[in-house]
Amino acid sequence: MNYSTPIKKKANIINSYGNRGMGLENDISETNKYYRINDIAIIYKKPTPITISKVDYPSRINAVIKEGYFRTPSTTDYNGIYKGKYIDFEAKETTCKTSFPLSNIHTHQINHLESIYKHGGIGFLIVRFTKLNLTYLITIETLLMFLKNSNRKSIPLEYFKENGYIIKNKYTPRVDYIEVIDTLYFDGGK
Amino acid sequence: MNYSTPIKKKANIINSYGNRGMGLENDISETNKYYRINDIAIIYKKPTPITISKVDYPSRINAVIKEGYFRTPSTTDYNGIYKGKYIDFEAKETTCKTSFPLSNIHTHQINHLESIYKHGGIGFLIVRFTKLNLTYLITIETLLMFLKNSNRKSIPLEYFKENGYIIKNKYTPRVDYIEVIDTLYFDGGK
Repeated sequence: MNYSTPIKKKANIINSYGNRGMGLENDISETNKYYRINDIAIIYKKPTPITISKVDYPSRINAVIKEGYFRTPSTTDYNGIYKGKYIDFEAKETTCKTSFPLSNIHTHQINHLESIYKHGGIGFLIVRFTKLNLTYLITIETLLMFLKNSNRKSIPLEYFKENGYIIKNKYTPRVDYIEVIDTLYFDGGK
Repeated sequence: MNYSTPIKKKANIINSYGNRGMGLENDISETNKYYRINDIAIIYKKPTPITISKVDYPSRINAVIKEGYFRTPSTTDYNGIYKGKYIDFEAKETTCKTSFPLSNIHTHQINHLESIYKHGGIGFLIVRFTKLNLTYLITIETLLMFLKNSNRKSIPLEYFKENGYIIKNKYTPRVDYIEVIDTLYFDGGK
């Protein structure tokens, strides 16, 4: 099944609105499709929240939005289920070579991930250092520990190296974060 | 904490776009807020998926959508976590007094709920018969059984009475579906 074309097309459309780090988003989108098609996990990206202020409404089917605004998301971008467990994460890219600026994540997203963790779910961040071609998974537990013990405005790359988990570059799936989740929470997937 | 005003306001705005059954949606929105504030469950409605075809983009913060279209959702409207379990459901209203027309749900939404069930999550429909003021929860397991054994284009009210679970009308929370989930999956919440 060839499903790469429509995804790339979509990425290009959205890309033209402002280079929102679509490389990683596109890779995760294809990875999630791979997981769904192979019945490994059911994980989707949530739609971008939009406040609509004007709509042309000639009929129910033909509604055209004429004015709308991007809203700050209340939660993270991705959630779903893997091996019966609730999965929830946010994915971010940075062009910085030495650290990940915390301004990239909203405080309410961190609070949301903390709630998920407290309710027994698996919460994490995927962070890609684009110029180094390195992608890390860092659990919410680890992130909260960092925030508790530091006043820094960014997480050093070294911290990811020591406390995060590298997600290897692969062809299929491109960002195999489930491999890390298996190691951390499911005894290596055995 | 009074949080009813902004929700009602939002509901009214969206209502003007086409009476999409906002009574139940509004009730579930307040119920989910109640669950979150009281740290019972973390469940959100996903944003409506929109395809954006034109954006005024003077700066990153001031983007204005000038043309967009409503997309068919790939999944259900609501998901989240309760007692470590993944929860996923769709909510629908009908003005019909004798049955729930299946045209109200997309086939891919039923398939999605079936996948969730197979992956160990809790999937269901909430159906409100507005003219009877009756709200039912029906599990995906039960819905699949009905679809397997029937060629009908609607589910009779009788079927809900026999195989569904009534969600009582309450003041707070308005649609306490977690009470039913407790009975079905958590030994009555004990």
